[in-house]
Amino acid sequence: MANPTAAMLVIGDEILSGRTRDSNMHFLAKELTRTGIDLKETRVVSDDPQAITGAVQALAAAYDTVFTSGGIGPTHDDITAECVAAAFDTPIGIRDDARALLAAHYQRTGAELNEARLRMARIPEGAALIDNPVSVAPGFTIQNVHVMAGVPAVFEAMVASVLPTLTGGQPLLSQTLRIERGEGEIAGPLADLAADFPDLSIGSYPFQSNGIYGANIVIRGQDGAQVDAAMTRLSEMFA
Amino acid sequence: MANPTAAMLVIGDEILSGRTRDSNMHFLAKELTRTGIDLKETRVVSDDPQAITGAVQALAAAYDTVFTSGGIGPTHDDITAECVAAAFDTPIGIRDDARALLAAHYQRTGAELNEARLRMARIPEGAALIDNPVSVAPGFTIQNVHVMAGVPAVFEAMVASVLPTLTGGQPLLSQTLRIERGEGEIAGPLADLAADFPDLSIGSYPFQSNGIYGANIVIRGQDGAQVDAAMTRLSEMFA
Repeated sequence: MANPTAAMLVIGDEILSGRTRDSNMHFLAKELTRTGIDLKETRVVSDDPQAITGAVQALAAAYDTVFTSGGIGPTHDDITAECVAAAFDTPIGIRDDARALLAAHYQRTGAELNEARLRMARIPEGAALIDNPVSVAPGFTIQNVHVMAGVPAVFEAMVASVLPTLTGGQPLLSQTLRIERGEGEIAGPLADLAADFPDLSIGSYPFQSNGIYGANIVIRGQDGAQVDAAMTRLSEMFA
Repeated sequence: MANPTAAMLVIGDEILSGRTRDSNMHFLAKELTRTGIDLKETRVVSDDPQAITGAVQALAAAYDTVFTSGGIGPTHDDITAECVAAAFDTPIGIRDDARALLAAHYQRTGAELNEARLRMARIPEGAALIDNPVSVAPGFTIQNVHVMAGVPAVFEAMVASVLPTLTGGQPLLSQTLRIERGEGEIAGPLADLAADFPDLSIGSYPFQSNGIYGANIVIRGQDGAQVDAAMTRLSEMFA
């Protein structure tokens, strides 16, 4: 059976301007591969309501699960919650359960639960909260979309809360062989191998450093015996 | 006048599986910001013909310029050139100028220009070649789409060839102030500042490390005097 599919949406001008290098995509990609959920697409869009709403609608319709990262803090440029609510045509407002989490936290720390901080309690109707063990302000799940923070430590903690609630498929197994020959030399036999194992994904990733060049051949699949068989053939071909 | 817009399309299963961490997106983002071209969106898709063709069509229609990365080597999983040709309904075949580049290169290195390597001379009709000073096999430009290699050293060299041919706008200027207070405390005054400078983008990027927390406030815009004025106000607000 095919694995469930997923997409990721990264929201933030700071990624697109090159100020910040995103790390959440790579983290999520590895976690989903371990879980047996196929990450099929990621998008990065700017802090623009139309861009966010449009991307949420497109990805939620095309894939089983969508993960978003960024734009759920207290400042004026944090507009993700409103945009996701709009994408599903759902009302959004300050919710008592989210407000209670924040109130308890700020009471403990002695800070004021002011208007800006209250923005973080704005949750679309019917959404389930996602626990934030790092800085309390919750993410949320609405339909098949999980809305999470952009700060890596918080994003990673929220992913850890969400993943156990999802049904994964077969984890993708992978084996790699490093071959120190030009891709152009190995491409022919490699294409034959790929044709003989249609259920596997066989990728060739060239490298070149310090005068040594070649390619890492990665064989991926859900069936360990097939991956083994293809890797044995590959090793014999280029022994 | 508004700057030209751009999108990037990263092609490759290895990014979506978490095997490889993409670096081309961050590199291109920085280069475009320096050039005065606004990167509005990036997408990562897998080595799937429909996904690649669909993304090329959507992005080429929505933005002034599109940059792709990955999938133009000699192996069976390199299908980008075919998919871009299909996106523009353009015939593709081995082109004499590209074949001549490869033939000269392999003659010099003593390797054979075999069938697999010849795949790298497949160029859509009417496309212009993009120089590859690193490993010779060219990229190409068709309409508003620049098709480049995924290997970072080659991608970066190709971007250096392409950027001077594009018309940039005003480079985006940016200034940053580090404020060691919670975002929730500064969000109110920050929203007022953003409202007073509608032509500027004012972003708040929280950090938290070793018990110190706060936010970097980044003010971006094309008009240096306005950026200066907003930064002066910001410094006074949180002095």
